[in-house]
Amino acid sequence: MSATNYPPKVILTEVGPRDGLQNEKGVIPTAEKLAFINALVESGVTRLEAGSFVSPKWVPQMADTAELFDQIKPKAGVRYIALVPNPKGLEIALQHPVKDIAVFTAASETFTKKNINRTIEESLSEIGQVLATAKQHGLWVRGYVSTCFACPYEGAVKPERVLEVAERLVQAGVDELSIGDTIGVANPKQVESISAMLLEKIPEEKIALHFHDTRGTALANVVAGLRMGILKYDASAGGLGGCPYAPGASGNLATEDLLNMLEGMGIDTGVNLEKLAQASLAIGKTLGKALPSKVLQAMAEKCI
Amino acid sequence: MSATNYPPKVILTEVGPRDGLQNEKGVIPTAEKLAFINALVESGVTRLEAGSFVSPKWVPQMADTAELFDQIKPKAGVRYIALVPNPKGLEIALQHPVKDIAVFTAASETFTKKNINRTIEESLSEIGQVLATAKQHGLWVRGYVSTCFACPYEGAVKPERVLEVAERLVQAGVDELSIGDTIGVANPKQVESISAMLLEKIPEEKIALHFHDTRGTALANVVAGLRMGILKYDASAGGLGGCPYAPGASGNLATEDLLNMLEGMGIDTGVNLEKLAQASLAIGKTLGKALPSKVLQAMAEKCI
Repeated sequence: MSATNYPPKVILTEVGPRDGLQNEKGVIPTAEKLAFINALVESGVTRLEAGSFVSPKWVPQMADTAELFDQIKPKAGVRYIALVPNPKGLEIALQHPVKDIAVFTAASETFTKKNINRTIEESLSEIGQVLATAKQHGLWVRGYVSTCFACPYEGAVKPERVLEVAERLVQAGVDELSIGDTIGVANPKQVESISAMLLEKIPEEKIALHFHDTRGTALANVVAGLRMGILKYDASAGGLGGCPYAPGASGNLATEDLLNMLEGMGIDTGVNLEKLAQASLAIGKTLGKALPSKVLQAMAEKCI
Repeated sequence: MSATNYPPKVILTEVGPRDGLQNEKGVIPTAEKLAFINALVESGVTRLEAGSFVSPKWVPQMADTAELFDQIKPKAGVRYIALVPNPKGLEIALQHPVKDIAVFTAASETFTKKNINRTIEESLSEIGQVLATAKQHGLWVRGYVSTCFACPYEGAVKPERVLEVAERLVQAGVDELSIGDTIGVANPKQVESISAMLLEKIPEEKIALHFHDTRGTALANVVAGLRMGILKYDASAGGLGGCPYAPGASGNLATEDLLNMLEGMGIDTGVNLEKLAQASLAIGKTLGKALPSKVLQAMAEKCI
């Protein structure tokens, strides 16, 4: 087998301030979130999940999202993405300076039911309503598909089901998909086969991959995606987010771990690893914990 | 790019009882080492590093290696490997029931000097003496090459240098090489290119890859090796060994993390993950610490 021809450039979507912080204990003051977001942008991040217009009853960590968007001084060319769970969330988002949103559903019926108390069909129908209004207002929309590799309740998820949900979202008008390995069980072989299937039907620039490092396979999965020609990846600064069921265990792929590997491979992301690591260390300090990123640990301990 | 045709089978060399335990604090009683080794073999491991005939002054953790080999009741078809640093070590090894040994050198001059106070040339010459005697006694010999991807002192290591040292070891008579990323800095692109270079000159069955997960890239590097057609990998039960400079950070790739990924990819190792994890948990208990393997953590915490 000959060596892979890796792409020169990859686009990172930083999910730490939303997906990350939402899954950490404790509520971060708005000013510190803002400083975190600004530090991430300063490091070169051009797309980030900033918050979520979800009920503060369910997710107190995101209760200040409206306030946060009011305070962000957007840098040109940067997407500050707000998660919008339903038409009600969109209504609130539209009252604030929000230009980029994300909607979400899943490829597993049981997960969707337990997560948002909807069938996948009901969730797609609601996303259709959100998208109709969002497009009228000229918003850019990202669509998350969770549990694309396996479901914590159902086990294996059929790749055909992932493709079906992905295509429905694209038809409904999402500008980009984020194909998620919610529980960190994907392996490179599976990533190659799902990527190939998606790429047959959906343009490459509309596909991002979102891996969790719960079992140490996230970077191997990124490389599998790169080999298949997918150029967009999600990651969370410091590995923020964790696994909600295992303190200390990793959830989201850590941005530092991704950047370090890509840098070594000569693949440009436009993001400065040292600066991003500083942003992670600062938010880790606020949270009062060491973040799980291996590269962050190696940097801190001068590991050789 | 089309999906990779992964091999159906991979051969694991378990390094936990030597490379792992040598880099942990504390000396494990011989009986517990023996139980650990037997449990690993019981899980399906067919090659393992059992100990090291090195001065107990330098490595007290391995002081009981002779005693250990005297007590092992070898299972047919299993290689119980003893590290032999020099002719003196071999002399002792030959007084005990040792049939498989490992010798070691490195691809970086400064590392070799600091690690064993020899030039690479001096070390190869000494290995030549060890091999001459070992072959007279019909021993099987593995040759470790450290710092094949970078050196903690010199930085980048030239792939040509790795090839040169590897070829010298093969010419001297080693039956197998273990190409090591001692400080966990390799990336998949580098692994592909070094593997291609080695495979041009050395038969595939003589090459094993040894990765550290210090920066989270070990499994991505394994997959890169698999793509190039390399079928032998080293790993350490539970991730034993750590990074000597960073408590809590990972060193050796954890066997559980490797097995879990390979199993998911349908690649057979002949080793039972659950049983191996039990062996790791038992030795972790003796060491009084949680081992860094992510899969072990995910199993323990029922992470979803």
